[in-house]
Amino acid sequence: MTKHHLPATPDTVHWGYFSKTLEPVLTLKSGERAVIETITHHANDDYERMIAGDPAAEEIFHWSKDRKTLRRRGAGPTDGALTYGSGEGLGVHLLTGPIAIEGAEPGDIIEVRILDAWPRPSANPAYQGRFFGSNPAANWGFQYKDLIEEPKPREVVTIYELDMGEASVKALYSYLWTPQTDPDGIVHPTIDYPGVRVDHDTIVKKEGILSGIKVPARLHFGTMGLAPAEADFVSTIPPNYTGGNMDDWRIARGARMYYPVAVPGGLFSCGDAHASQGDSELSGTAIEISLTGEFEFILHKKADLGGTILEGLNHPLLENEDVWSVYGFSVTNYLAELGPDHQHEILKRSSLDNAMRDAFRKLRRFLMTTQKLSEDEAISLMSVAADFAVTQVVDANWGVTGSIRKSLFAGR
Amino acid sequence: MTKHHLPATPDTVHWGYFSKTLEPVLTLKSGERAVIETITHHANDDYERMIAGDPAAEEIFHWSKDRKTLRRRGAGPTDGALTYGSGEGLGVHLLTGPIAIEGAEPGDIIEVRILDAWPRPSANPAYQGRFFGSNPAANWGFQYKDLIEEPKPREVVTIYELDMGEASVKALYSYLWTPQTDPDGIVHPTIDYPGVRVDHDTIVKKEGILSGIKVPARLHFGTMGLAPAEADFVSTIPPNYTGGNMDDWRIARGARMYYPVAVPGGLFSCGDAHASQGDSELSGTAIEISLTGEFEFILHKKADLGGTILEGLNHPLLENEDVWSVYGFSVTNYLAELGPDHQHEILKRSSLDNAMRDAFRKLRRFLMTTQKLSEDEAISLMSVAADFAVTQVVDANWGVTGSIRKSLFAGR
Repeated sequence: MTKHHLPATPDTVHWGYFSKTLEPVLTLKSGERAVIETITHHANDDYERMIAGDPAAEEIFHWSKDRKTLRRRGAGPTDGALTYGSGEGLGVHLLTGPIAIEGAEPGDIIEVRILDAWPRPSANPAYQGRFFGSNPAANWGFQYKDLIEEPKPREVVTIYELDMGEASVKALYSYLWTPQTDPDGIVHPTIDYPGVRVDHDTIVKKEGILSGIKVPARLHFGTMGLAPAEADFVSTIPPNYTGGNMDDWRIARGARMYYPVAVPGGLFSCGDAHASQGDSELSGTAIEISLTGEFEFILHKKADLGGTILEGLNHPLLENEDVWSVYGFSVTNYLAELGPDHQHEILKRSSLDNAMRDAFRKLRRFLMTTQKLSEDEAISLMSVAADFAVTQVVDANWGVTGSIRKSLFAGR
Repeated sequence: MTKHHLPATPDTVHWGYFSKTLEPVLTLKSGERAVIETITHHANDDYERMIAGDPAAEEIFHWSKDRKTLRRRGAGPTDGALTYGSGEGLGVHLLTGPIAIEGAEPGDIIEVRILDAWPRPSANPAYQGRFFGSNPAANWGFQYKDLIEEPKPREVVTIYELDMGEASVKALYSYLWTPQTDPDGIVHPTIDYPGVRVDHDTIVKKEGILSGIKVPARLHFGTMGLAPAEADFVSTIPPNYTGGNMDDWRIARGARMYYPVAVPGGLFSCGDAHASQGDSELSGTAIEISLTGEFEFILHKKADLGGTILEGLNHPLLENEDVWSVYGFSVTNYLAELGPDHQHEILKRSSLDNAMRDAFRKLRRFLMTTQKLSEDEAISLMSVAADFAVTQVVDANWGVTGSIRKSLFAGR
């Protein structure tokens, strides 16, 4: 089998948006595998540990007065008087891709098997071979307007180190975000634009934090998905029917994700990798880290879906050894439902109650269609055996994950 | 050690309410154990399987034109023109208790260790020794106004059998709820009053449902808690600061629950047992079954809480081998916050968003107070390592459970 390798380079990444207008950087046949490098958009929270000495990361993040390698960061405006910068940070995730799957057409399903994931080592001689990530408690976090200690509000960045031997993560230090001036002269009083390099001369590091506490690693990709059909440039922040920023830590090694194809080729991109995250991603981010993944892509043609677990699927579905999971959103397909200003409108629609409603409906449909249950059977089974978790409360289109164990059906 | 036995009898149960006015049926010293029988309030969904031949159940549920053993069922009115019946079904759970803990005073914490739980066998010779439970998809369920198949709306009762050898549960049959006339002549077009015997001549049983599907057992007590201070009679439906109808399937063997004492003696009651339930209790109920539990009660005096995980605790806390869990509610203490009509007002305040907010605040406080973290440390740790689940969306005061693994702190 051909195993492709897709490095992260300025030519293979796009920043802050999904787009059906992008040319694929790789085209695969169904059944092929690819090793894909991803680089975290939070690497500049600690340039020395996460960028320095790594030529690809250095080039991707390069931004001087004269040259900004990746100018557009987000789905917003790129011209005129910019408030935050090109793309306006309407979308923040640095994604690798897109990858086209040969023959994929709207109505098909692309299955993405996550075969493995491993961290990208620091290339700075001072930290050679070690793995670092960043966890900002950001202005879009659930806590931001609900803080009790001074100063209020505030953003705090915590830098963690991942120990792959122990498969655990430990905090190294934290700092309060201070206004950062980018090379174009724009001041960023808060974390309002991705990839701004934090000048460590302007911050005060707090060491010895979370002393003695180790967090088990949960390596996963926060953002994986296909290009939507509804708009040319779509912010990476709200997850939607073609996947995207789902931020479920179960989207990890051993999982298979199924995504509905909305545009020819599907156009898969991934990034926003995490060393660990809890259900809710409370502070607005996980431990943001650069991971490389090995994936296998399988195309399921529309005509072949009947009688499989993919029948009628029009939203992302996870399958792993234990469960099938559906993802409920505040708005099922915000691009289609919220009118021309959908990308701003969704910011006002965050609702766990609606996400729970959507997860209920999606899981009911899944059970009725693919397990041939009546509505009454599906509802009883969900009440006694399905579990609903708070996926995230920070990505505008807030999410609830509904899971049903596959073992329930072993006797059928 | 003295092990007490508290059978379920008309004299040891109360129906639909917590009350500080109840005399304790048992008084224990801190450290004592008790085996407590509970009987499900849904037993009359299938009288033959869950009541017939069981003298205690028969007497508790006895309701003829001449005599209703337990007249009051709920915290509502008991006199005048009653719509549903005495107590008005404002609260539905049949609880065993209350048990007083000697010396417990407001400000103290009562720890309840669940040592074991086992089902109450059918005493009907036709079903001797077998275990049955009922799962109504009820009018207070999350699905009720959101059904797709006809007739709409509808309530459907599914009867399950528990196999203790396999530790799994299987559906036996279901039926559509039909109007039931109680012995006082009140017609119940929906499930609006607890303990109404379903006349099986009025229903049509659907067999062969959920064929081949087995649900792993999760034996637990849906309702456990202490008497609140704010009102004399408090509906069992909304969980609150002294516990109650939390409906978390993790409140099971091996768990320790900690409850703040609001009235002298604490007055612990339990019931609403379940053979299994998923996070959300979607249809309004779990597999409602009669369980007997063995419990140990430990009194923690207010003066001794400093420096322990109970310091500053003013809400229920779960501890098991793996995690500490807090319970976020739509309204933190609805009895204190919603004015004199609190028991009706809470019905309009159901909100997962608010429950998530409450869970966040409670877990933050727990981490700051008991693990001596700064607010920034607590928030970062919650984002990368705490998990939030949808406890229930059916008990008026909807809930989100926030859990943090104890192992994170093993190195401290």
